[in-house]
Amino acid sequence: MFRYKITIEYDGTGISGWQRQLNNISVQQILEDAIKKLTKEEVTVHGSGRTDAGVHALEQVAHFDLSKEYQPKPFIRSLNHFIKPYAVVVTNCEMVDEQFHARFSAKRRHYKYIVLNRLCESVLLKNKALHIREKLDVEKMREAAKILIGLHDFTSFRATHCQALSPVKTIDSIDIEKIDDQVIFILKAPSFLHHMVRNIVGTLILVGKGKWQVSDVQKALDTKDRKAGGPTAPAEGLYFLKVEYT
Amino acid sequence: MFRYKITIEYDGTGISGWQRQLNNISVQQILEDAIKKLTKEEVTVHGSGRTDAGVHALEQVAHFDLSKEYQPKPFIRSLNHFIKPYAVVVTNCEMVDEQFHARFSAKRRHYKYIVLNRLCESVLLKNKALHIREKLDVEKMREAAKILIGLHDFTSFRATHCQALSPVKTIDSIDIEKIDDQVIFILKAPSFLHHMVRNIVGTLILVGKGKWQVSDVQKALDTKDRKAGGPTAPAEGLYFLKVEYT
Repeated sequence: MFRYKITIEYDGTGISGWQRQLNNISVQQILEDAIKKLTKEEVTVHGSGRTDAGVHALEQVAHFDLSKEYQPKPFIRSLNHFIKPYAVVVTNCEMVDEQFHARFSAKRRHYKYIVLNRLCESVLLKNKALHIREKLDVEKMREAAKILIGLHDFTSFRATHCQALSPVKTIDSIDIEKIDDQVIFILKAPSFLHHMVRNIVGTLILVGKGKWQVSDVQKALDTKDRKAGGPTAPAEGLYFLKVEYT
Repeated sequence: MFRYKITIEYDGTGISGWQRQLNNISVQQILEDAIKKLTKEEVTVHGSGRTDAGVHALEQVAHFDLSKEYQPKPFIRSLNHFIKPYAVVVTNCEMVDEQFHARFSAKRRHYKYIVLNRLCESVLLKNKALHIREKLDVEKMREAAKILIGLHDFTSFRATHCQALSPVKTIDSIDIEKIDDQVIFILKAPSFLHHMVRNIVGTLILVGKGKWQVSDVQKALDTKDRKAGGPTAPAEGLYFLKVEYT
């Protein structure tokens, strides 16, 4: 048995997220089907984490096992051939030992959220950023973000149907940069609850718009009720950036 | 008579460039048609410079005259309504005096070229970057670029059908940055000859791949013959960034 670790980029537009579903096309199914066409083996592809419909990925990681050994470079090329025409591409492949697990060995995940903050929509960032007209106060959002750093009960920022056993998570950092007309959020944590990144960004945007005070974020966190948190930011602005293993 | 200066973003994919043509859809025509639908006036939209089919723009500038005065913000909104479903968007509009000319008043143009330099194609940058597998030597390309800075006869880097009266131009700067797996070229000059940016980038890529020595670029420049220059880099990686007027 040989274990393969792959890195995957995808454009989430028109894909029903990472996880295999009955009636919709998912990244997991696209990969499993391509691997089957190439190797004739039926595999389960284990991702480092699920992403929702419409969410993009630059370096998602997954693993699977095959009975045969393949050379990584030609393997990637053939796999990408069978993945077409989907907007998914395998960008790296390596053999790993059987202790490696894409999800359970992961030490830290990085997410990026892009807001286009200007009067007009963008055609070059169509489905790739959230468009907001009102000027966001980046300094206020940075202040508010500080409240969420560290170990907290994130009940107010998890999806009500989230299946994680505990709402307690640790956020390592939330960086917010203004580059030209984009506001870019980078969040890093060992792991996130369902919708946690989008709920945090949605809340920080309320602060950026001046609809919430910085102190309202503290109140929302303390209330430990999803109804107290801000709205879920749309999927189209979210990118799974990468995952650290060592 | 009121003169309007507009800023335009477009995704060049599937558009036959800036200039109005008989049988293909161009940015100029899309804008002129939308202005006519909105104002019932027949106008000519003068761009700061033409872009080829497939070339993108972040801040292209154009001007036109109307007999009526419109408020810029609602005017932009209505114009963008009539532009849909094309991948063109007007991002700014202001009234300018009649001395202003989008092309002749322009002091300096900025272009960007994106190369994705890694093994696999990208799905997120589809039609938005040139994909090159071989690792490019950025330091060598920077050395070669220095040769082209300043006032030169750029005959070796202009399209053979270029209509400019003189092949002599001044390049202010060529910056080449490596950011993750992208190599980004930024070129600034008062003006460029037809295909000049793409021919320069195509030539520098030969140096980056090690197929040309740095000194070959000097030879190409000195030869003053298009056949001596490198190939024209594809349109999909090129972005008209912006134009300076003061």
